[in-house]
Amino acid sequence: MKVKVAINGYGTIGKRVADAVSKQDDMEIIGVTKTKPDYVSKMTAYPLYVAVPENMGTFEEAGVKVHGTIGDLLKKADIVVDGSPGKIGAEHKPMYEKAGVKAVFEGGEKHELAGVSFNAMANYDSAIGKDFVRVVSCNTTGLCRTLYPLYRDFGIDNVKAVMIRRSADPPDSKKGPINAIEPVLKVPSHHGPDVQTVIPDLNISTMAVKVPTTIMHLHSVIVELKKEAGTEDVLNVWENTPRVKFVRGADGVKSTAQIMEMARDMGRNRSDMYEIIVWKDGVHVDGKTLYYSQAIHQESDVVPENIDCIRAMTNLEKNKLKSIEKTDKAMGIN
Amino acid sequence: MKVKVAINGYGTIGKRVADAVSKQDDMEIIGVTKTKPDYVSKMTAYPLYVAVPENMGTFEEAGVKVHGTIGDLLKKADIVVDGSPGKIGAEHKPMYEKAGVKAVFEGGEKHELAGVSFNAMANYDSAIGKDFVRVVSCNTTGLCRTLYPLYRDFGIDNVKAVMIRRSADPPDSKKGPINAIEPVLKVPSHHGPDVQTVIPDLNISTMAVKVPTTIMHLHSVIVELKKEAGTEDVLNVWENTPRVKFVRGADGVKSTAQIMEMARDMGRNRSDMYEIIVWKDGVHVDGKTLYYSQAIHQESDVVPENIDCIRAMTNLEKNKLKSIEKTDKAMGIN
Amino acid sequence: MKVKVAINGYGTIGKRVADAVSKQDDMEIIGVTKTKPDYVSKMTAYPLYVAVPENMGTFEEAGVKVHGTIGDLLKKADIVVDGSPGKIGAEHKPMYEKAGVKAVFEGGEKHELAGVSFNAMANYDSAIGKDFVRVVSCNTTGLCRTLYPLYRDFGIDNVKAVMIRRSADPPDSKKGPINAIEPVLKVPSHHGPDVQTVIPDLNISTMAVKVPTTIMHLHSVIVELKKEAGTEDVLNVWENTPRVKFVRGADGVKSTAQIMEMARDMGRNRSDMYEIIVWKDGVHVDGKTLYYSQAIHQESDVVPENIDCIRAMTNLEKNKLKSIEKTDKAMGIN
Amino acid sequence: MKVKVAINGYGTIGKRVADAVSKQDDMEIIGVTKTKPDYVSKMTAYPLYVAVPENMGTFEEAGVKVHGTIGDLLKKADIVVDGSPGKIGAEHKPMYEKAGVKAVFEGGEKHELAGVSFNAMANYDSAIGKDFVRVVSCNTTGLCRTLYPLYRDFGIDNVKAVMIRRSADPPDSKKGPINAIEPVLKVPSHHGPDVQTVIPDLNISTMAVKVPTTIMHLHSVIVELKKEAGTEDVLNVWENTPRVKFVRGADGVKSTAQIMEMARDMGRNRSDMYEIIVWKDGVHVDGKTLYYSQAIHQESDVVPENIDCIRAMTNLEKNKLKSIEKTDKAMGIN
Repeated sequence: MKVKVAINGYGTIGKRVADAVSKQDDMEIIGVTKTKPDYVSKMTAYPLYVAVPENMGTFEEAGVKVHGTIGDLLKKADIVVDGSPGKIGAEHKPMYEKAGVKAVFEGGEKHELAGVSFNAMANYDSAIGKDFVRVVSCNTTGLCRTLYPLYRDFGIDNVKAVMIRRSADPPDSKKGPINAIEPVLKVPSHHGPDVQTVIPDLNISTMAVKVPTTIMHLHSVIVELKKEAGTEDVLNVWENTPRVKFVRGADGVKSTAQIMEMARDMGRNRSDMYEIIVWKDGVHVDGKTLYYSQAIHQESDVVPENIDCIRAMTNLEKNKLKSIEKTDKAMGIN
Repeated sequence: MKVKVAINGYGTIGKRVADAVSKQDDMEIIGVTKTKPDYVSKMTAYPLYVAVPENMGTFEEAGVKVHGTIGDLLKKADIVVDGSPGKIGAEHKPMYEKAGVKAVFEGGEKHELAGVSFNAMANYDSAIGKDFVRVVSCNTTGLCRTLYPLYRDFGIDNVKAVMIRRSADPPDSKKGPINAIEPVLKVPSHHGPDVQTVIPDLNISTMAVKVPTTIMHLHSVIVELKKEAGTEDVLNVWENTPRVKFVRGADGVKSTAQIMEMARDMGRNRSDMYEIIVWKDGVHVDGKTLYYSQAIHQESDVVPENIDCIRAMTNLEKNKLKSIEKTDKAMGIN
Repeated sequence: MKVKVAINGYGTIGKRVADAVSKQDDMEIIGVTKTKPDYVSKMTAYPLYVAVPENMGTFEEAGVKVHGTIGDLLKKADIVVDGSPGKIGAEHKPMYEKAGVKAVFEGGEKHELAGVSFNAMANYDSAIGKDFVRVVSCNTTGLCRTLYPLYRDFGIDNVKAVMIRRSADPPDSKKGPINAIEPVLKVPSHHGPDVQTVIPDLNISTMAVKVPTTIMHLHSVIVELKKEAGTEDVLNVWENTPRVKFVRGADGVKSTAQIMEMARDMGRNRSDMYEIIVWKDGVHVDGKTLYYSQAIHQESDVVPENIDCIRAMTNLEKNKLKSIEKTDKAMGIN
Repeated sequence: MKVKVAINGYGTIGKRVADAVSKQDDMEIIGVTKTKPDYVSKMTAYPLYVAVPENMGTFEEAGVKVHGTIGDLLKKADIVVDGSPGKIGAEHKPMYEKAGVKAVFEGGEKHELAGVSFNAMANYDSAIGKDFVRVVSCNTTGLCRTLYPLYRDFGIDNVKAVMIRRSADPPDSKKGPINAIEPVLKVPSHHGPDVQTVIPDLNISTMAVKVPTTIMHLHSVIVELKKEAGTEDVLNVWENTPRVKFVRGADGVKSTAQIMEMARDMGRNRSDMYEIIVWKDGVHVDGKTLYYSQAIHQESDVVPENIDCIRAMTNLEKNKLKSIEKTDKAMGIN
C-alpha cells in the first residue's frame, strides 16, 4: 500500500513536491491545501482542501470546489509536507501532533522545530523513522550537495561562500528591486550555521546579497581543503555525486539564463532543474584552495530531497543511495 | 505514410516545431540542423545535420555526432521548416527549390519571399498545396488571432495598437537594455502592414517599444468597430476562437509573469503558452470603441500555426477547423 | 519681499520643488517637513519640521534636529506645496484652510480637491489668485505639453496614447516587477480624463502598462489632427514650445537611458530632465495622422510647473510666458 | 601657471576627469577628444579634438566644430589622461612618448604599460615625477581604499572577496543580461593580482559575477586580520580614511539604489559618488575575522585618484594627504 501524503500549502515547493510524489510508486498525494481561491486553486488537478477553515466561504463564492478543510485531510494522511511560508509551519506543528501525522517541514522553519535537518547524501539516516524532519532550504541544500563529498573525501579546513540571491521567484511580480544590489547586512549570514545543522563540524562562513533577477541563486565558493587535490580530483568526486551536474561556459552556458533553458530543453516538469549546477570550466584548485561557482534552482532543488525524506521517515527505504536512485529515476534525473 | 519534416535551424522556433511535429500522427521529424556544436547540439534527441557544410569539422572536434549536411537531409524530406534567423531563410530558398522540397518560412522573412503569409484562422485556404508559405511573426500572429474574428463578426473601422516588446528571449543573456525603454523610431511600425499580408483590407496602425523583460510581448489595442457591440459580445466571440485564452486580474494574474507560471502549472512542454492571452477584466467596449490588452508568448505562439501550415501545404487536411482541432489536441491546447 | 513657501512632504517632488524655489528671486523656502527621521532628514539643508506631530519623539531619539511641527511652519508660510503621497493631500486641506495658507496639490490628488488643474502653457490664467490649485501628474503634464500646441494650431480630432510606465522611482528598491509587463486593466486609463481637466474638450483615450524600469515613462501617441500638416509643421510648433526638447536616435539617443545620461551631461540638479523629450526622427505625419514617441522624467517634469503655479496663485506674475521664461532661466532650462 | 591637461577619450571616465580638473586651481583642461560626432560631442563645452584623424570628415558632415586632431592637442599639453576603452591606451603610448607628454592610463590597461599602478592613499609617492602611471580600476580602487588602512594598522593574513558587478553603465542600453547571473569563470579573478600591483604583499583571492543592474558594484569581503580587533576599531580606522564613507541600513539605505539617490541629494556633479560606501551596520569582526560589504560607483570612484595622480606626476605636490585634501575640497568630498 502506498504512503498517503498530504500537502499543506500548495505553493512554489508544495506543488512541486505533489508532482514528484505522484511520480513515485510507493507514495501518493491524497490532497493539497490553499488559503485563497486564486488561479492556482482553479487549475490544480489534486483534491483541494481549505488550509484556513474560516476561508471556506470565499472558495464557495469563487465557485471553487473543495473536499474539506486541512483537518479533514489530515485524518486520511500518513505524512504531511508543510509548504507554508516561513515560520507558519511552526504554528501548524501542534495540529499535526494532535492528528498523529508525521510532518516534513521546509527550510523556512527553524532547525529546532523538527530537531533534525535533512540532506539526502549528508545525513539520510538521521531521518529514518522520525515524526518531524526539516528539509533544509534551497541554498543550504546546494551547499551540502557539493561540500559534503569534499568534506568526506578531502577534509575541509574552512569554506567562505557568497550567495548571490535572486530577489523574487518568477511569478512574483510585485517584488523588486529593479535596478539595485542589496547586501544582507547581518554578517556572517545564516547560511553557514544552517549548513552546520546538517554537517555539524564544517567550518563555514557566508555572506549574501540580493540582485534583480528571478532565476536561480549563484554561489561563489572558496574552500580550503585539508588534503591537497588536483582540479581533476574534485571534478571526479562531483562526477560521482548524485544531483550535481556540470555545464561548461565553453559550450555556451554562460549564465543562469542558459541553465534554465537547458531545463526546458530536457523536458523537465515546470522547466525545473533539480540538480546543483557547477561550471566545470569554472572549477580551479590552487594548492589546497578550491574555487567554484554553482547555480541553484531555488524553486526545485529541494524537491527530490523531500521525497527521500518522506521515504526515510516512513521507513519505506533505509538505504540512502537506493532512495536517491529511486527518486531520481522517477523524476527524470539521470 | 507520414509527411517527412526537416527543421533547418534548430533554434527557438525550430526546436518547438520539431517537438510539435513529433506529437502529430500524420507527420514526423527526420532531422534538424545546427550551425555550431554548442550545448543544444549535444542535448538534442533528433537526428542532427550540419546547416553549414564547411562547419562539419567543428562538430567532429567537439565530439558531436552528425548524420550529414543540410543537403543530405533535404534529400529525404517532403517539407522543410526554416527556423533560421531573419533574412537568412531567403538565402536558403534556391537550395530548397533545387532540392524540390516545400518550405515553411517564418515571420523574420519578407512576405514576398513566399507570396503567401499565413494564419490558420484567417487564411488557411491560401496555403493549401503551396510550395512556399510564410508563417507570420509572433506579434502578427497575436494580432490576427484576436482581430480576425472581430473583423469577421463586427467589422473594423480602424485599429491602433502599441506593441510593448520583450528585449531578448530568456536564454539570451547578452542583450539588454537593463534599465531603459527604447521606442522603435520608425513609425508606424511594420506590424500593421504585416497584419495586412494576412487580412489585406484591415485598417491598422501600430507603434512599438522595447522594454527590459525576457518574457512575452504585450499589446495595448484600441479598435473602432463598425457595428456597435457590448463587452460581452466581444468576449463571446473570443470564447469561441481557438488559441485565444482568457485570464483575469481578479484571479491574481496581474502580469506576464503569472501567465508564464500558468504555462508551467499546465505542464506545457518547455513551459510554453501557445495561446494569445487576453485579460478578461481588461476588455471594455465603449460605444464602438473596444480596448483590450493581450500577451504574446514570443517563443511559441506560432508553433501550432506552423503545424497547420505544413498540413495545408502538403494537402493532409483541407478544412482549417479540422486541422486546428487536430493540432491543438495533440499539443494539449484545450 | 519674497513669497514664503513651505513644503509639506519632502519626498521625490517636494525636494525638487524646494530646490527650484530656492533658485527663484521672488520666492523662498522657509521649511520642509518629513514624517520619519531617515537619511533624507539627516541630509537636508532646509529647516526641518515634523509632518506628523506625534512623531516628534522619534526625531529626537534619532538625534535629528527639527524646528517644530507642520503647524509651526504653516504660521510663517504664504503658500504650501503639498508633496504628500497620493490622496494624503486631501486630508491636509482643512489644516491649510484653517491656517489661511494657499496650497498647491500634486497630481496624486483628485481634480475636485482644488477645482483647478494646472499646466503652465495650457491654462496658466485659471490659477491666478486662487487659494487651491492642483498641478497635474507627470504623465498628464507630458501629454499637455505636446498636445496643447497641436490642439491650438491644428485642431485635434482624437488622440490614442499608450503610457509605458516605469514601475518604481530609482531609489525605491523594494518594488518590482523584475521581469514582467503588467497592464493597467482599467480601460481606458485615467490619463485621458485627467488631461481633460486641463484641456476640457480634447478627445483622448489612453491605456497604460507597467514595465521593469526605474527611469522615465514613455508615451506612444497617435493623433488625428483636424487640419492636414506636414511632419515639419509639427516639429516647428514644438520647436517653439517651452519645455519640449528634441533628441535624435541618429545621434545615439536610442532609449530613456541616454536621455537620463544627457541630463547628467547637462549638469542638471539631481540629474533631472524637466523637459518632455520627443524623438525628432520618430515623428511622422501621414495625412492627418501624427505618430510620435515622448519620454517623461517622472521625478521632475512637474517641478517648473509648480513654480509657475506658485507665481500665478500669489499674483507674482499674470503673464504665462513671462513666468515660464523666468522659471526656466533660473532652473537652467534653455 | 596651471598644468595643462588633455583628455584623450571623452567617455565615462574622461568626461568626469575633465570636470574634476576644471575644479582644481592648479590644473586646467585644454581639450578633449572624441572618435565620433555623437550627442556627447555636440553637447560638450570643452574644446573638441578628433581622436582618430581619419574621422575628421564625419565631424564636419555632422556639423560639429572641432579644434584639430589629437596630434594638435598633444602639442599644447603637459599631461594627457587616456580615457580610451581598455587596451587602446597601450596603442597610444608611442604617440605620447613621441610628443613628449606625460600620460595617465586607466585600469583597463595592463600594469606593465606604465610600470606604476596608483592609489592615492596606498602609494602616492610611487607616482611622483613619473612619465607614465596607471590609475587602477574602479574595483581595485575600492579594495585598496578599505584594505590598505587595515593592512597598515592591523596587518592582514588573507582576504577573500567576491565582486558582484553591474553589467553595464547606465547609458549603455544595449548590454544585458536582463534576467540572469553570470559568473566570471576564470578563477581566481584578476582583481586580486590587480590589488597586488598597488599593495604587493597583500594575500588576496577574488571571484566575480555579473548581475543585471547598471548602478554600482558591490563587494562582499571577508578579511583575516593579523591582530585581533573589535568592530569599533575597524570602524574608527575607516572613519579617519579619506574617500571611505559610511551609510546605515537602519537609516533606510538598504541597497545601491539609495546610495545613488544620496549622491543626487548631495548635489554631486552627474550625481556621482566618489567615495567607497561601507554599510556601517554591515561590518562585523569575529575574533580576527572581519566581514564587510562595500559599494563602488564604477563611473566615478577613480576620478579623484586621477587628479592626485596628475599632481604627483607633475610634481605639483609631494605630500599625499595634502593632495588628497586639496582634490576632495575642490570636488565637494567632505
